[in-house]
Amino acid sequence: MKDRNQLRDRIHEIIFEADTPEGKRFDVIIMILIVASVLTVMLESVSVIQWQYEEVFYIIEWIFTIIFTIEYILRLYSVRYTWRYATSFYGVIDLLAIIPTYLSIFFMGSQSLLVIRALRLMRVFRIFKLGQFMSEGMIIVKAMKASRVKISIFLFFILIVVTIIGAVMYLVEGTFDNTGFTSIPKSIYWAIVTLTTVGFGDITPQTSLGQFLSAVVMILGYAVIAVPTGIVSAELVDQAKAAATNTQACRYCGEDGHDDDAKHCKYCGNILNEPHNH
Amino acid sequence: MKDRNQLRDRIHEIIFEADTPEGKRFDVIIMILIVASVLTVMLESVSVIQWQYEEVFYIIEWIFTIIFTIEYILRLYSVRYTWRYATSFYGVIDLLAIIPTYLSIFFMGSQSLLVIRALRLMRVFRIFKLGQFMSEGMIIVKAMKASRVKISIFLFFILIVVTIIGAVMYLVEGTFDNTGFTSIPKSIYWAIVTLTTVGFGDITPQTSLGQFLSAVVMILGYAVIAVPTGIVSAELVDQAKAAATNTQACRYCGEDGHDDDAKHCKYCGNILNEPHNH
Amino acid sequence: MKDRNQLRDRIHEIIFEADTPEGKRFDVIIMILIVASVLTVMLESVSVIQWQYEEVFYIIEWIFTIIFTIEYILRLYSVRYTWRYATSFYGVIDLLAIIPTYLSIFFMGSQSLLVIRALRLMRVFRIFKLGQFMSEGMIIVKAMKASRVKISIFLFFILIVVTIIGAVMYLVEGTFDNTGFTSIPKSIYWAIVTLTTVGFGDITPQTSLGQFLSAVVMILGYAVIAVPTGIVSAELVDQAKAAATNTQACRYCGEDGHDDDAKHCKYCGNILNEPHNH
Amino acid sequence: MKDRNQLRDRIHEIIFEADTPEGKRFDVIIMILIVASVLTVMLESVSVIQWQYEEVFYIIEWIFTIIFTIEYILRLYSVRYTWRYATSFYGVIDLLAIIPTYLSIFFMGSQSLLVIRALRLMRVFRIFKLGQFMSEGMIIVKAMKASRVKISIFLFFILIVVTIIGAVMYLVEGTFDNTGFTSIPKSIYWAIVTLTTVGFGDITPQTSLGQFLSAVVMILGYAVIAVPTGIVSAELVDQAKAAATNTQACRYCGEDGHDDDAKHCKYCGNILNEPHNH
Repeated sequence: MKDRNQLRDRIHEIIFEADTPEGKRFDVIIMILIVASVLTVMLESVSVIQWQYEEVFYIIEWIFTIIFTIEYILRLYSVRYTWRYATSFYGVIDLLAIIPTYLSIFFMGSQSLLVIRALRLMRVFRIFKLGQFMSEGMIIVKAMKASRVKISIFLFFILIVVTIIGAVMYLVEGTFDNTGFTSIPKSIYWAIVTLTTVGFGDITPQTSLGQFLSAVVMILGYAVIAVPTGIVSAELVDQAKAAATNTQACRYCGEDGHDDDAKHCKYCGNILNEPHNH
Repeated sequence: MKDRNQLRDRIHEIIFEADTPEGKRFDVIIMILIVASVLTVMLESVSVIQWQYEEVFYIIEWIFTIIFTIEYILRLYSVRYTWRYATSFYGVIDLLAIIPTYLSIFFMGSQSLLVIRALRLMRVFRIFKLGQFMSEGMIIVKAMKASRVKISIFLFFILIVVTIIGAVMYLVEGTFDNTGFTSIPKSIYWAIVTLTTVGFGDITPQTSLGQFLSAVVMILGYAVIAVPTGIVSAELVDQAKAAATNTQACRYCGEDGHDDDAKHCKYCGNILNEPHNH
Repeated sequence: MKDRNQLRDRIHEIIFEADTPEGKRFDVIIMILIVASVLTVMLESVSVIQWQYEEVFYIIEWIFTIIFTIEYILRLYSVRYTWRYATSFYGVIDLLAIIPTYLSIFFMGSQSLLVIRALRLMRVFRIFKLGQFMSEGMIIVKAMKASRVKISIFLFFILIVVTIIGAVMYLVEGTFDNTGFTSIPKSIYWAIVTLTTVGFGDITPQTSLGQFLSAVVMILGYAVIAVPTGIVSAELVDQAKAAATNTQACRYCGEDGHDDDAKHCKYCGNILNEPHNH
Repeated sequence: MKDRNQLRDRIHEIIFEADTPEGKRFDVIIMILIVASVLTVMLESVSVIQWQYEEVFYIIEWIFTIIFTIEYILRLYSVRYTWRYATSFYGVIDLLAIIPTYLSIFFMGSQSLLVIRALRLMRVFRIFKLGQFMSEGMIIVKAMKASRVKISIFLFFILIVVTIIGAVMYLVEGTFDNTGFTSIPKSIYWAIVTLTTVGFGDITPQTSLGQFLSAVVMILGYAVIAVPTGIVSAELVDQAKAAATNTQACRYCGEDGHDDDAKHCKYCGNILNEPHNH
C-alpha cells in the first residue's frame, strides 16, 4: 500500500512538477509531442499531402492519441484530488485533446478538432514558471484584468454603433444588386471589418453616398481605435509604476510600497530613511 | 386626484428608476425586448428568411411596436416635466424607435430604420449605474472629452491631407481606364481607405508612380496613425493618475498627493485622517 | 502719401489680422470661398457632372481665381515686407492656389491642381489663434517635433527591412505567373502595404512558402506597429506632464516650473510656499 | 615594416572611423554606392527595363561587386583582429553583399539576393554616431529589449490562438468549394491576416457562421492589438522618465530626483552643483 503511494507520488512529481530534472524533461518531451501532433493535424488537412499518406497519418494520429491517453490516465491516477483536476482548465483541455480521435471512429472529419491540442502548449509557461518570465507575463495579465471593465464597456458601445452603421449601409447600398450588402447581418459584418481596419474588400460600397458614409465611418474608426490601445497603455504604465515603486520597508512597522520622495512611513509615521536626520 | 398622483409616482418609480427591485426587473425586461426586436429586424432583412416568414415578421414587428408605444406613453405620462423628457436624448431615441413601423404603412422599406432601437440599449448603463462600472466608463468619456480638441485639430488636418493626396492620385492614375480613380471624390475615398489602413482593395493604383506615391502615403500614415492613439493614451494615463491621487492635504504641513492607504503624512509624519485614531 | 499708407494699414488689418471684427469676418468669408472652390474642383472631376455643366464650371473657376488673385495682390500690396511674405509658407500656397487656372489656358487638365487651395484652409488655425485651441494644437506639434528623430530612425529602419522582404518575396513568388510579384519594386510596394496593415489584396502570395513568409512578416509587423505609437504616446505623456507642472513662481527670483513636491526654489534656494513655515 | 603598419593604420582610419574628415567622406561615398547598387538590382528585376539594358546591368553589377570586394579585402587587411571582424554582424553582411554576383556565374537568378546590400546601409548610424541621433535610437532599442520578454509571451499566445481559430474556420468553411479555406495552414494564414488587421481579402468567409466567427475574431483582435502597443508605450514612457531624471543627490539632505536645470535642492534649499558658486 505504501509502495503504491510512493509510486503515485513519484508519478505526480514527474508529471506535474517542473522543478525537478525529471519533471522538466517530461514537460519538454510532452511539449515536443504536442507540437508534432498539432503539425500532423495541420498537414493532414492539406489535401495533396493527405491523399498520398492517408494510412501513415491514420497510424501517427492513433499513436499520439494513445500516448496522450496514457498520460491523461496517469494524471488522473497520480493527482490527489482527481475530480478537481478533471474539472480544472488544464484537465478539461487534456481530455478534449484525445476525444476527437475516438470520435472519428463514429464521425468523419472530427480529426481537425485535434488542433485543440495546441491549447495544451500553454503548459509551456509552467516550465518557465520561476523567475522573470512569469512575472512579466503576470503584468500583461494584470493589465488586461484591470482594463477588463473599460474594454467591455467599449466593446458593448462598438456593438451598438456597428449595428446602426450596418443598418444604415444596408438601406443605402442594399437595393443595388452587385454590392454585398444583401442583409443587415452582412452589413454589420462589413461594418466590423471596416471599423477594425481589417478591410477584406469582399463587400465594398458602390454608391457615392455609401462611399461617403464609409469614409466617415473610417475617419471615426481612426479616432476610435485609439481607445482600447490607450486603455491598455495607461494600465501598463500604471503597472510599470507600481512595479517600480520603492522597495524600502519601514523599520518600525515593516510596511513597504512607499513613494520615492516619502520621508515618513505612510502607515506608522516614523521616519523612513535615517541618514536624513530631519 | 391624490390616487392619480400616487399612480404616476408608482409608474415613474418602475419605469425610470433602476434602484428598486421592480425598476430593475422592468429595465431587464425592456432590454430583452429591445434585443429581441433588433434581432427580428436583422433577420427580416435576410431575404431567404423574409420570404418564408413574411407574415410572422409583420405580426411580431407590430407587437414590439405596440409594447414600446405603450411604454413611451407611460413615460410621457409619469414624468414630471413631460417636455423635458420628450426632448432629451433618451426621449428622442424612444420616439424614433417606434415611428418607423407607423411610417411603414405609408412608405415601404422603412422597417430597417427600426434598428435605431439598438440605441435604446445604452440604457443598460443605467442598470449598472451604481458602483465601479460607471466610474470606469466615466474615465473613458472624460479622456475622450479632454482630447476632443486635439482629435478635432488632427482630423481637420487629416481631411486637408486626404484632399491633396486624392487630387494628386487622380492626376496620376485617373487617365488609365481600368483603375478606380475616376474622380477626385473617389480618389479621396481611396486616400481615406488607405490612410486609416483599412485597405479594401476595391480601388488600387496600377501605375508605378501611383504605387510609389501610395507607398509614401502608407509610410506616412504609419507614423500618423500613432497620433490619435498617443493623444488618448496620454489622456488616459493622466486620468488614471488624477483618479489615483488622493486630494487630501495634511493638516500639519499642508502637503497633498498622499496615497489612498496612507495613514500618516509622508512628509511630516503626522496622522492624516483623524477618524482612524491610531 | 499719408492717406496711401493709411489705406495700406487698413487693408493689412482686414486681411492679415484675425483679432478685429472686420479681420475675422474677412477670414471667415475667405474660408467659405476656399471650401466652395475646392468642392467645385472636386465636382468638376466627376465626369457625369462635368459633361453636363462644363461651361458653368469654366465660369465659376475663373470667378474664384479672379477673387483669389485680387486677394493675393492686396496681400502683396499691404504687407510691409513684400518679399518675405511672397516666399513664406502661406505666400507660396496663396500663389500656387491661383496659378493652375492660368496654366489651364495653355495646358489641359491642370485644373485638378487647384485642390492645392485646400492647403489654404490651414489658415483656419489663425482664426482660433487665441486661447485653448492653439495651445492644444501646439502640444501635438511639439510632440511630433520631439519624436521627429526617433520616428526618422524608425522609418529608415523600416525602409531597409521592406527592401529585404520585397526581394525575398520576389525570389519566392516572382517565378509564378499569376501572382503580382513581377519585380522587386512591386514586391517592396506589397511589403509596405502588408507591414502597414493596409492590405489592399491586389498582390497576394500564392505559394505556401510565400504565405508562410507573409505570416511571419505580419506577426513581426504586429509588434513593429507598436513602436511609432509608443514613441508619440510617450512624448505626449511627457508634454502633458510638462503642461501640468506647478504654475507657482518663486517670490524671490520669479522662476517657475517647480515640481509639486518642491519646498525650495530650485534656482535660488529660497523657500517656495510660505504657509508651511519649515 | 613600419611603413606597412602605418599604411594599415591609415586605411583603418579611413575605412572604419567616421570622426575624421576622410573617414566621413569615405562612409558617405560607400553609402551612395550601396544605394546606387540596390537601386540597380531593383531596376534589373523590372522585366521591361531588364530586356532593354541587359548588358548594361551586367557590367554595372560587376563594377559594384568589384568595388565592394576591394573594400572588403581592405577591411580584412587593415583591421587588427581579422577573424573577429569577419565573423561580426557587419563583417558577415559585407561578405554576403558581394557573394551573389560570383554565385550568378554558376546559378541563374541569384542576383536578386544582392539587395542584401541594403543591410549595409545600417552603417549610416555610424556617421551620426555622435550626438543626439544615437541616444534617441538607443531609447527605442532599449525599450524594445526591455519589452522583449513581454512581446514574446504575447506572440506565443497569439500563435496558439491563431492555430485554434484557423482549425475552427477550416471546419466551418473548408467544405465549401469556392472559399480559400482549403487546409488548416491556409486557414491559419487567414487568421493571421485577419488578427493583424492586414485583411488582404484573398481568402474570405462565405458562410454566415464563418462571417459571424470572423466578426468575433476581429472584435477580439481589436482589443488584442492594443497589447503590444501598450507594452512598448509603457516601456518608452518609462525610458523617457529614466532619461529625464537627474541622478544627482543633494550633498546636504541626500535627496535626488532633481531636474536638470535645478541649482538648489528642492527639499532643503542648499546649492546642488558646486561649480556654479552662486
